Amino acid sequence: MKSRIRRTFAPMQHSDTIVALATAQGISAIAVIRLSGPDAIELVQRAFRGKDLREQPSHTIHFGTIVDGDRTIDEVLVSIFQGSRSFTKEPSVEISCPGSPVIAKEIIKVLLKQGARLAEPGEFTKRAFLHGRFDLAQAEAVADLIHAETDNARQAALNQMRGGFSKEIAHLREELIHFASLIELELDFGEEDVEFAKRDDLRQLIERIQSYLRALIQSFDHGNVIKNGVPTVIAGKPNAGKSTLLNALLNEEKAIVSDIPGTTRDAIEDEMILGGINFRFIDTAGLRETQDVIEAMGVERTRDRMKKASIILYLIDLSTATRKSIEEEETTLKALGIPYLKVGNKIDKADPALVETLRAHDFTFISAADKTNMQGLKDRLLDLFKIRTVTTGDVLVTNLRHYQNLLQTNEALTRVLDSMDNNITGDFLAMDIRQALHYLGEITGSITTEDLLDNIFSKFCIGK
Amino acid sequence: MKSRIRRTFAPMQHSDTIVALATAQGISAIAVIRLSGPDAIELVQRAFRGKDLREQPSHTIHFGTIVDGDRTIDEVLVSIFQGSRSFTKEPSVEISCPGSPVIAKEIIKVLLKQGARLAEPGEFTKRAFLHGRFDLAQAEAVADLIHAETDNARQAALNQMRGGFSKEIAHLREELIHFASLIELELDFGEEDVEFAKRDDLRQLIERIQSYLRALIQSFDHGNVIKNGVPTVIAGKPNAGKSTLLNALLNEEKAIVSDIPGTTRDAIEDEMILGGINFRFIDTAGLRETQDVIEAMGVERTRDRMKKASIILYLIDLSTATRKSIEEEETTLKALGIPYLKVGNKIDKADPALVETLRAHDFTFISAADKTNMQGLKDRLLDLFKIRTVTTGDVLVTNLRHYQNLLQTNEALTRVLDSMDNNITGDFLAMDIRQALHYLGEITGSITTEDLLDNIFSKFCIGK
Repeated sequence: MKSRIRRTFAPMQHSDTIVALATAQGISAIAVIRLSGPDAIELVQRAFRGKDLREQPSHTIHFGTIVDGDRTIDEVLVSIFQGSRSFTKEPSVEISCPGSPVIAKEIIKVLLKQGARLAEPGEFTKRAFLHGRFDLAQAEAVADLIHAETDNARQAALNQMRGGFSKEIAHLREELIHFASLIELELDFGEEDVEFAKRDDLRQLIERIQSYLRALIQSFDHGNVIKNGVPTVIAGKPNAGKSTLLNALLNEEKAIVSDIPGTTRDAIEDEMILGGINFRFIDTAGLRETQDVIEAMGVERTRDRMKKASIILYLIDLSTATRKSIEEEETTLKALGIPYLKVGNKIDKADPALVETLRAHDFTFISAADKTNMQGLKDRLLDLFKIRTVTTGDVLVTNLRHYQNLLQTNEALTRVLDSMDNNITGDFLAMDIRQALHYLGEITGSITTEDLLDNIFSKFCIGK
Repeated sequence: MKSRIRRTFAPMQHSDTIVALATAQGISAIAVIRLSGPDAIELVQRAFRGKDLREQPSHTIHFGTIVDGDRTIDEVLVSIFQGSRSFTKEPSVEISCPGSPVIAKEIIKVLLKQGARLAEPGEFTKRAFLHGRFDLAQAEAVADLIHAETDNARQAALNQMRGGFSKEIAHLREELIHFASLIELELDFGEEDVEFAKRDDLRQLIERIQSYLRALIQSFDHGNVIKNGVPTVIAGKPNAGKSTLLNALLNEEKAIVSDIPGTTRDAIEDEMILGGINFRFIDTAGLRETQDVIEAMGVERTRDRMKKASIILYLIDLSTATRKSIEEEETTLKALGIPYLKVGNKIDKADPALVETLRAHDFTFISAADKTNMQGLKDRLLDLFKIRTVTTGDVLVTNLRHYQNLLQTNEALTRVLDSMDNNITGDFLAMDIRQALHYLGEITGSITTEDLLDNIFSKFCIGK
């Protein structure tokens, strides 16, 4: 470990006060500027004409003007959050001003002049973490919550933010620490044949921990889909109806997504939220231009793209396909090793005998042009991912870092069990337990390094 | 007048509660959702788990969660503004949530379900106006403030929002109404030769009003430049150094504009803020490609563009120009009838004799490549617009609607004076005074029509 290990949750004082624009850039009704640090209130007071902010109770709002000497910048509403009751557990201020980039910039300039410093990305949340507002996994969920693109992803992030597996992991880790200290004690006694840590109890605890870890590890498949969506490819021979299908799927869902004006993000051409899952369509334009799609799959570039897909919707034009051509296509498709759904398009123009044969071969029949059986196709797609709606209290691992740490903890614990089975000495037991504790501790941030924190918080928004 | 005339400032009750996202779209630390209307607090309460918001004093902030039945949407901070103390003078609520489009949308959905209605653009400010928070000119300044691109424009809007000419106009209008009613009274007496309205006093009042109006009308030249910037064209023969000059000007100013990271808007390639004025460079790419720029000015399309310019920076390449070629260029330039600045570029490669001759002809000498005398050029540019910094209390007309109404009021009053000079009967006096009152009243919104209000507020942001 190159960088200094820091044991957190010990109260920490920051001496400087940070400031940042907390709302999105752009012209809007209002913008909010956020400050946190020991001098936050004092510092705003120096640029404020209105009540004495230092005398106001926490969680109150005050009208006034921000001034730069004699120059009035603007009329604002100032919200006061006293020390321990704020998000960061430091004195904090939020300044609500007209949503103009010029005004926000001018106000921030004045605050910098008064001694504030521009916040790094995620620095507010980092301070909240360092002051024990929540653990590291919860802090990471703060960012996940903001980046959530579906209601399921939002719910998963919210559950994690509100505790999720944090409490259970912290609890299991405490128990393991207890055993670790007993074993370390044994080692201090050196040659003497003492056994403070009862091996059976330890085994039981490890099995209990592993059973919990396995459930979390398994949840990642689902959690990852919830958080990151499903990369999807619509493939098939030219004129199989790929674009028609994509448009049929997108248009239908877009109409639902955008029924509330003013709240929808800029349209994303190739994403579709279906059953709470974000299906992201991977561009296969290159494929479309070749004469034989299946052959084109051989091309390395295209193959790479296809491999990024979690699912292929494979379209067959029933008006021209024969049993033989379909068999050939499926052989090549199978070779890719990626789950696929066989979709028979143009059902209205299909030879009934062919349809009858294909019925036994797990086909979904549609007509993309007429939007026939689109619901059936969607249901098949969702079945494939065994998607269920995330509800309050569901514990899902959605974060790759947590997933990897869970795997590593599990492996270390398996080594502990192996060592016990083979009567390996306490030194090795202790080493593996320490490793397990380390990986587990990194999830919740009981053990962190500056590198780890920098890496995590640098991906946050400024102002968060 | 097609639409219904409404006399405002009479208290008005809206029965519905409006909701909108008030911050800019996009992923950010926080987003704010705003509600206003008689049921705003009650309505949020129904979707809120936390304290009873209905019992909380104005200007206080409360932590809790927004729920949709059993489903938790998110943790939020709710700010309460009671009736008369809110911006709209209605019960109002601001909900601060993570800056995620998904979350904001979900929360708005829940509030719609509870009975809120999506706000129209500018509807919050419209309600504030209709409830007498400020007059119409002040309401318009609310939008100007947000769209201000320079500090001067911000200050001009702020001055207007804080009263500006509103009070004085309302006062003068009251005096004029007094005379109008006396004259109407004379008319009631019909044939009898009574004179309730002393003509000398009326004349004095009108002259006083006109003197004030003229000052406001004159301020529009300056105000318009402050608010809308200066359309600027850099012209000249190919290779005169136009792009070099543009880059030299832009780069230099951009460095100053963008020294505070995270607060600057997306870079706009062809705008430069200089001395608090936004110089907007008009694309003359078409011009650059022709062989003879002066000739090309004859082309209609280019001519149209040039005519939109308030100023032409005309560049002459001193390393190749002759006295004769310069005279020819200036003849064509003059014919355009647009103010121009003659700029001699590549001063380092110029023939000293030529420079000596040109010195008497109001040239500014620069080297765009070396950035020689850029400050001199900027000073000349600013001198041309007699730009001065707008300070607190400066009264400037920046709004075209106000400007037009001021002109029309002034004309109507001139007609009143003419009528008095020519002993025209009271009917005509009364008619012109009524017209003056109408135009004047429209500025501050003492007289409005639905059309006028719709037209003004529809240009606002949603959520403002």
